[in-house]
Amino acid sequence: MKLYFNPRSRAVIAKWMLDECGVEYELVPISLEKKEQKSPEYLKINPAGKLPALVDGATRLFENAAICLYLADKFPQANLAPKLDAPERGRYLSLMVYSTSQLEPSMGDHLMKTPTLPQRGWTEFEGALNVVEQELGAGPYLFGDWFTAADVMIGSMFIWMRMFGAKPGRPTIDAYVDRLLARPKGIRMG
Amino acid sequence: MKLYFNPRSRAVIAKWMLDECGVEYELVPISLEKKEQKSPEYLKINPAGKLPALVDGATRLFENAAICLYLADKFPQANLAPKLDAPERGRYLSLMVYSTSQLEPSMGDHLMKTPTLPQRGWTEFEGALNVVEQELGAGPYLFGDWFTAADVMIGSMFIWMRMFGAKPGRPTIDAYVDRLLARPKGIRMG
Repeated sequence: MKLYFNPRSRAVIAKWMLDECGVEYELVPISLEKKEQKSPEYLKINPAGKLPALVDGATRLFENAAICLYLADKFPQANLAPKLDAPERGRYLSLMVYSTSQLEPSMGDHLMKTPTLPQRGWTEFEGALNVVEQELGAGPYLFGDWFTAADVMIGSMFIWMRMFGAKPGRPTIDAYVDRLLARPKGIRMG
Repeated sequence: MKLYFNPRSRAVIAKWMLDECGVEYELVPISLEKKEQKSPEYLKINPAGKLPALVDGATRLFENAAICLYLADKFPQANLAPKLDAPERGRYLSLMVYSTSQLEPSMGDHLMKTPTLPQRGWTEFEGALNVVEQELGAGPYLFGDWFTAADVMIGSMFIWMRMFGAKPGRPTIDAYVDRLLARPKGIRMG
């Protein structure tokens, strides 16, 4: 597997997932300064011209949530996702999608001080924090003691927020993020 | 299975998917006028207070992309998704996530005439149209002759755009949307 990577990009999320899977992979460095993510070769892999992308033999992937969904199902021995027929599967898929369709843009609005228009598919940031608090419950992870790819996706959004020196001001979520950052195979930002 | 539904909401996408699966389900009407999507009972199912949500026995789901991923895997006889070990699986997951993490917000920016800031996770709308054109190729669907849940998710964004009287101005995509709207079990907007 080849991960198209830059440490100063969202590709650190896919790298974290690969490390949690405990599998071997190759990093293909992509220079953002040289705009290599917009090169014709790279656009054949990810036509959106963004990082990350993953190539696994004949399969190509873009979007972190898709890469995490794929890896969790491909490596069941890593135990990072409920099986297809498990009762937790629905909530797992929902959180995976939610992380990128709602949490990330609502956090973006918050950090950029952009109002969240009601026509948007996502809620205001305080609403997103309520969702994460409710889904986290007593923790320590989104599925209790079980660390899953949903923690990689939801957690990395808050880790990204910390890079901007910001915390959501919810002690439950702050403690959750501390816990994720303490993982031996945890995320390493650029 | 119970689909929490209002015909004037994004829940029409999940309903389309259920119809393409050819399975039985119950519609639970949710009144937006009465703000039933914000009721304590509904928030236990979808804490984001948005439509749709799906309950399948002990499993609960929110977010259209999650519901479509779930149903496509649950009903393999409907043949709406590549199997876990198929080479198309990666591209399929990427398109499913892309539809909601990039295409929908970039289309939202376009329709609301909001500039797409470069820090965002998504590109400007013209960039998203390039992605869809590239991935569609010669069509007729995103996987050639094979109609999949990725067509439900990507296609419904453009169908939603037409509700606002707007077309992307790309003949390939316009013809693709016409084709989707002509499907016998196709989407019905409120």
